[in-house]
Order: sequence, then structure tokens, then C-alpha cells
Amino acid sequence: MKTEKKAVILFSGGLDSTTVLYYALSKGYKCSCLMFDYEQRHNKELLSAIKIAKSVKAEYSIIKMCLPWSKDVLTNKNKKIPVHKRLPKTIPPTYVPGRNTLFLSYALSYAQSISAQTIFIGVNSVDFSNYPDCTSKFIKAYNEVLKVLKTRIIVQTPLLKLNKAQIIKLGTKLNVPYQDTWTCYNGYEKPCMRCDSCKLRAKGFKETKIKDPAI
Amino acid sequence: MKTEKKAVILFSGGLDSTTVLYYALSKGYKCSCLMFDYEQRHNKELLSAIKIAKSVKAEYSIIKMCLPWSKDVLTNKNKKIPVHKRLPKTIPPTYVPGRNTLFLSYALSYAQSISAQTIFIGVNSVDFSNYPDCTSKFIKAYNEVLKVLKTRIIVQTPLLKLNKAQIIKLGTKLNVPYQDTWTCYNGYEKPCMRCDSCKLRAKGFKETKIKDPAI
Repeated sequence: MKTEKKAVILFSGGLDSTTVLYYALSKGYKCSCLMFDYEQRHNKELLSAIKIAKSVKAEYSIIKMCLPWSKDVLTNKNKKIPVHKRLPKTIPPTYVPGRNTLFLSYALSYAQSISAQTIFIGVNSVDFSNYPDCTSKFIKAYNEVLKVLKTRIIVQTPLLKLNKAQIIKLGTKLNVPYQDTWTCYNGYEKPCMRCDSCKLRAKGFKETKIKDPAI
Repeated sequence: MKTEKKAVILFSGGLDSTTVLYYALSKGYKCSCLMFDYEQRHNKELLSAIKIAKSVKAEYSIIKMCLPWSKDVLTNKNKKIPVHKRLPKTIPPTYVPGRNTLFLSYALSYAQSISAQTIFIGVNSVDFSNYPDCTSKFIKAYNEVLKVLKTRIIVQTPLLKLNKAQIIKLGTKLNVPYQDTWTCYNGYEKPCMRCDSCKLRAKGFKETKIKDPAI
């Protein structure tokens, strides 16, 4: 009997992680989506995530994650989301310290409990926002941790070497419902089109010459 | 001006982590204790932790950590704590998958936010319970993750090579209030003296010929 291919998808309901979910499904994985409620400024992303996970009939689990000491702007409603003319070259204030390390550690625990062999995470080192936990070095080091824990679980990063336009091209081929994804750091009715996250997305769609169906 | 030495202590209120706290204090660290409420079967340990942290005037933070998929016996009140004649040679059912990885990842986030240089964890590879996340290999791999994240934070494990008797000797020198620590997996009024954790502690005190003041 062939072992069932199972994966935990770190899933935010954004453009990248939705592309990853569809990628994993296309590779025959039975997917369980792991989402986080980390007291974001808004829950638009989480609502997108739930809608998408349900639409592909994936199991999902939501972890309430509290970082009482966090001073980043994504979880701190009193701080303003920065607007940069150019994308930042240093670690920006939207960085949540230790975030991907925490996400992966919850995913490890989840994967072990459901005997999944793979954790998929949509990190991206080309059009990335200078977050130190979105690099191939980081993923390599984390995979080493999984190895010494004798888990046989591997973190896979199908988007790592793709730029935003290439991710959108891949997702379009896989029929990713980009109209349902949420990317904006702000939680207004429509994407603000001014924050770093909106700008990266817009740049990607512009390069592919595909119209963003979410706007 | 000399930089203040700051540390995050992964702190459970048990024998090992209390010894670690007193060790870090003796080395001149300003200590912040990080505790977890992960739906343990009982909160005796957490109450011990708070009492001890307050007594040394350490700051502390409690993280509510929920693992909805966890089937281990420590968080699952319907399962019985096992009683082994000998200490187990394989991974026992008290192992919470990914636990120390999660603890360290929260500690990383906490340490970054308060500019602490060190995370202390009381793992122990001699008298340990066969948990794969209590080994020097695991700590080494995790320190590599901290390095690639460009944090300058280091995980230190002062108890790693000590057996339980040596830990108790060290702690006794440092005036650790062992009467206030809680080790038992069960949450009865007194330690059960039958679970693996109680047995390890009793063996340690027996070898040092010191009477356990908690009994």
C-alpha cells in the first residue's frame, strides 16, 4: 500500500500561501491548512484563508497566538503602517520577531500529530521584504532542526526562487482564485495600494500583464 | 558603558528550570521568566513558577499555548500518566511533539523584544526522559537557526551534561528553594512518587543524600 502524501500548509489566505496550497494539491498532497490569529490589525486575511480552505475541502486549524511583548506595526493598532517610496533594504517595522520560526514550530507539531511528511511555506527570497526568516539559509537551518528531532518531516518552499510575477504565472496555471486572496497590511474594504505588500503585488501583476481580480 | 546582561529563562517552576534561573542570576543576568500555560492537566507547576519568579523579583510573561491536535498524556486529561518499572528507552507518551522547539521560538521572540542576549533552557541529556528535543544536537541546530536569523542570541544549557544528583548539588549551593518547585506529572496535593518525573527526582535526591524538602 502506498503511503498517503500529507502536508501541512502554512496558510494566511494571501497570494503566496494560496499559490502554495494549490501547488501542493496539484502534487497530490492531502492538505491541512494551519492559520494563525496573532492579533493582526484586521481579520480580512483570516477570513480569506477560511473561505479558500473550505472551497478546496482542506482541513484547517486556527492557532490563537499571543505575543504580549510584540511592538511590530502589524499587531499594534496604534502604529501606522509605513509607506515607502522604494521597498526597504533593511528589516522593516512590519517584521514580527520570530514569526516564521513560531509558525514552523506549530506546523512541526501539527505535522507530527497527523503523520504529514511535508510542511509547505510560501517564503520568497526574490521579491521579499527583507525579513531574515524568509531566506533559503533560514529554511535550511530549520530543516536541520527537524532532522535532529528525528521527524522525517521536510519544509518545502516552492516559491523561494520565484519573483512575484513568476508566482502569479504559476498560480494562474493552477487556477488559484486570486480574487479571494488578501494581501494588504491594512484592513479597509479594498486594498490600500500604498503599503509595501500592496505595492509588491501590484508590481507582480503588472509584470505578468494579468489584471488583479481582487481589485 | 557596559551592556546589561539580560536573559530569558524558559521557566516551568520545576526542579531543573528553577536551578537554571538561580544559575543565571548568580552569573549576573537580569532574568525574565517565560512560562507556558499549554492546557496542562494541572496548574501546580505554573503556580510554583509564579511564586518563585516573584520571590526573586524577576519579570515574567505567561503564554497561553494551544495545540488542538495534541494527543500526549500531559495535556490530555482522559489519558493515564504511565508508570514504568524502568525509565523508558524510547520516546514516551509524555512527549509533546515540538514542545521545546515552540518554547524556544517564543523565547526568541521575547528575547528580541527586550534585547536579551541569552536564552536559558534546563534541558538535560543525562537523566533525560528520551525526548529528542532535550539533546545537545537539537540545541546546536537551534542555535544555528538563531545565527541565520542574525539575532546574536544564544541558547545556553547549563544542565545539559549534569545528572539529576549533580543538578541538585549545584542548586543547593545556589540556595534554590526546592521546597517550592513542582516536578510531578500528576496534580495531586502531594507528588505521586510513581510517575517517571517523580522517580527521576527521587533518584537524584537519594544520590546526593539530601532530603527533598518538597516531600
